[in-house]
Amino acid sequence: MIKENILEQGRKAREAARLLSNMSTAVKNEALSKMALALEKKSEQIIEANAVDMERGKEKGLSRALLDRLLLTAERIEDMAEGLRTLISLSDPVGEIVKAWRRPNGLEVGKIRVPLGVVGIIYEARPNVTVDAAGLCLKTGNAVLLRGGTEAFHSNRAIADIIASAAEDAGIPGEAIQLVQTTDREAVDVMLKMNDYLDVLIPRGGAGLIQKVVKNATVPVIETGVGNCHAYVDEGADHQMAKEIVINAKTQRPGVCNAIETLLIHISEAETLLPGLAEDLRKNNVELRGCKRACQIVTGIKNASEEDWQTEYLDLILAIKVVDSLDEAVEHIHKYGSRHSEVIITQDYLRARKFLKNVDSAAVYVNASTRFTDGNQFGFGAEIGISTQKLHARGPMGLEALTTIKYLVWGEGQIRC
Amino acid sequence: MIKENILEQGRKAREAARLLSNMSTAVKNEALSKMALALEKKSEQIIEANAVDMERGKEKGLSRALLDRLLLTAERIEDMAEGLRTLISLSDPVGEIVKAWRRPNGLEVGKIRVPLGVVGIIYEARPNVTVDAAGLCLKTGNAVLLRGGTEAFHSNRAIADIIASAAEDAGIPGEAIQLVQTTDREAVDVMLKMNDYLDVLIPRGGAGLIQKVVKNATVPVIETGVGNCHAYVDEGADHQMAKEIVINAKTQRPGVCNAIETLLIHISEAETLLPGLAEDLRKNNVELRGCKRACQIVTGIKNASEEDWQTEYLDLILAIKVVDSLDEAVEHIHKYGSRHSEVIITQDYLRARKFLKNVDSAAVYVNASTRFTDGNQFGFGAEIGISTQKLHARGPMGLEALTTIKYLVWGEGQIRC
Repeated sequence: MIKENILEQGRKAREAARLLSNMSTAVKNEALSKMALALEKKSEQIIEANAVDMERGKEKGLSRALLDRLLLTAERIEDMAEGLRTLISLSDPVGEIVKAWRRPNGLEVGKIRVPLGVVGIIYEARPNVTVDAAGLCLKTGNAVLLRGGTEAFHSNRAIADIIASAAEDAGIPGEAIQLVQTTDREAVDVMLKMNDYLDVLIPRGGAGLIQKVVKNATVPVIETGVGNCHAYVDEGADHQMAKEIVINAKTQRPGVCNAIETLLIHISEAETLLPGLAEDLRKNNVELRGCKRACQIVTGIKNASEEDWQTEYLDLILAIKVVDSLDEAVEHIHKYGSRHSEVIITQDYLRARKFLKNVDSAAVYVNASTRFTDGNQFGFGAEIGISTQKLHARGPMGLEALTTIKYLVWGEGQIRC
Repeated sequence: MIKENILEQGRKAREAARLLSNMSTAVKNEALSKMALALEKKSEQIIEANAVDMERGKEKGLSRALLDRLLLTAERIEDMAEGLRTLISLSDPVGEIVKAWRRPNGLEVGKIRVPLGVVGIIYEARPNVTVDAAGLCLKTGNAVLLRGGTEAFHSNRAIADIIASAAEDAGIPGEAIQLVQTTDREAVDVMLKMNDYLDVLIPRGGAGLIQKVVKNATVPVIETGVGNCHAYVDEGADHQMAKEIVINAKTQRPGVCNAIETLLIHISEAETLLPGLAEDLRKNNVELRGCKRACQIVTGIKNASEEDWQTEYLDLILAIKVVDSLDEAVEHIHKYGSRHSEVIITQDYLRARKFLKNVDSAAVYVNASTRFTDGNQFGFGAEIGISTQKLHARGPMGLEALTTIKYLVWGEGQIRC
């Protein structure tokens, strides 16, 4: 029954996507506007549904952090509505003629941007993803099938009902925004194999969820999320700049993928920079774990194990390794990194270039915090997630990542010889 | 042992890819030139190895068609060498700055084209794929791990040895081009899950192989190949043009994915066009299978079953359906098509536009043969395959399909607030 219900949702989503793909930007923007207004008007209804989730979450013994992520307030609902309104002002990528040319035989070929079709999103606790994902998919002409976390089920259902019906008021097919109506895990298994009705799956959540989707899906997946990011302080780096960047990249928001997890520092700077930097980091409640040399330079640092170099802490912990050269830093990043974001802090032109060339990550920085790896910070206006794979989209994904292209070919009877 | 050997090849490919990714176009072109020359010089060695495969193929009772695909002659080897030389003249996509911009905080962000890394190719009988794939990957700075068909094992091994060693002479890492050294099927199973060492898998071959890869791979896959393509003859279409396009799209090379499998014809043209067209098709040895109305109009046509509408014949067979409207044609294509290539033959401007908009296929034509869906015919100069999925690449894939992007970010100490 679960399987049939979801397949039926998929079928309906596919039909909705066909209509939606040719809808005008004006209609889609009108829908976004009505969705925002509906969220505001019905915020009490959402808060009531959220209270059920919060109650159950407390009973289940969810951590304070998780409960905080789950909680919806009038202010947070207002933020979600504002997020939708932001999308209105962004230019619609659908219909862009990316390129067009004439062939010697007179055929004209045009490469045009079109929606992907139906996007499946599998996500965890935060209910704001329901609004974000639905808004992004709608703006790009895609139908969306949402599978939120069990903990947020009632909140998600209230939100999805409100925005889907508001979109319908603007002329969007009612099935363009659908939430899977069960918390049974079987639903996810069905979605993973739903190649006939889903064009792409985007998992958003912890490493466990993402790996489950990557390993088991036959639907193409865009992998997001894991960031074991590095800062490398080069020989001759400006110490003040190094401190500011390292502290910002570690502490400004430690629980996200673009925060750094390991500091690599050139031996020539280690003795003069590390003690003060360690003190500043500790003032920011950062626990330090160091290689042998780092532990010799700064007292009271725990020894880092092999596991530390591999770990995305997502917490106020920083591993520190003293290296003898840029090459050693690049090798360390190659061996342990997740190809998300890395920064070199340097005053040297050639070494900056070398780092940019030799580090194979989605975003490679010179002298700036890795925390800028973000769709909004890059200027995309919106973000679906940060792709850590190389196919289709890499790094922060804006609206274009939810589109594909098709070729249009105009002839007057050409045949192939 | 098989698993360890292949993982070891993967590790080496990954290291080779790191070096190759920053090699100059000049070095890569020099390698392509040396590879072409080596194929010509050592063609006898290749022909000897091929003779072993041919002998075994005959013993195994391979069909004449398969044996012909397997056969290598001096002329065919010359064609492979010429294929490599063609790549030299194509512009290198690696290093292209796709876009760059400055953010309000002074950060400069650049989006630069880089190689994917290591490409895995799993393919069937034709040994020319060994050369094609190796050349395309080399030109785009990717290492390649090739897994050819059992039938062509000796031919592939001889070819791979020759071209890898020629590339090495030009300064390319020896492990940039590697062939899996076993015909054991376990090798494929290992490759499908080799996420640490492969950035993408491209299967090339029959539907069975492609589905096996799509269903079982955890490495991201680019799906190629299946084409259940349609021609729709619209009300008021030019009959002569319709005949020429339908005959060309069906018969010019029936065994390939961009040939049509079903003809949809508007009722208003069916009685006048079908009898003559059927005669012409039969002269070209095409077997016809029709809907009820088609069978009434033309005598001696077999009845088409539900299965016929779903089938990619890859043979001189054509299914014919009479429809009452453009919408019915579009619905039929939506229901049965594989989203590869479809054409409308029409004189009507608005219906041409409607078809282009409402048919969701990689290539949608007005008044031209679907046989043009091809990298060379589109002007890309080379083709890795034709993607039938929507992620990363759709339709004919040129060199760009073997690249990804990375973001470079230049700052002078920017941190995030």
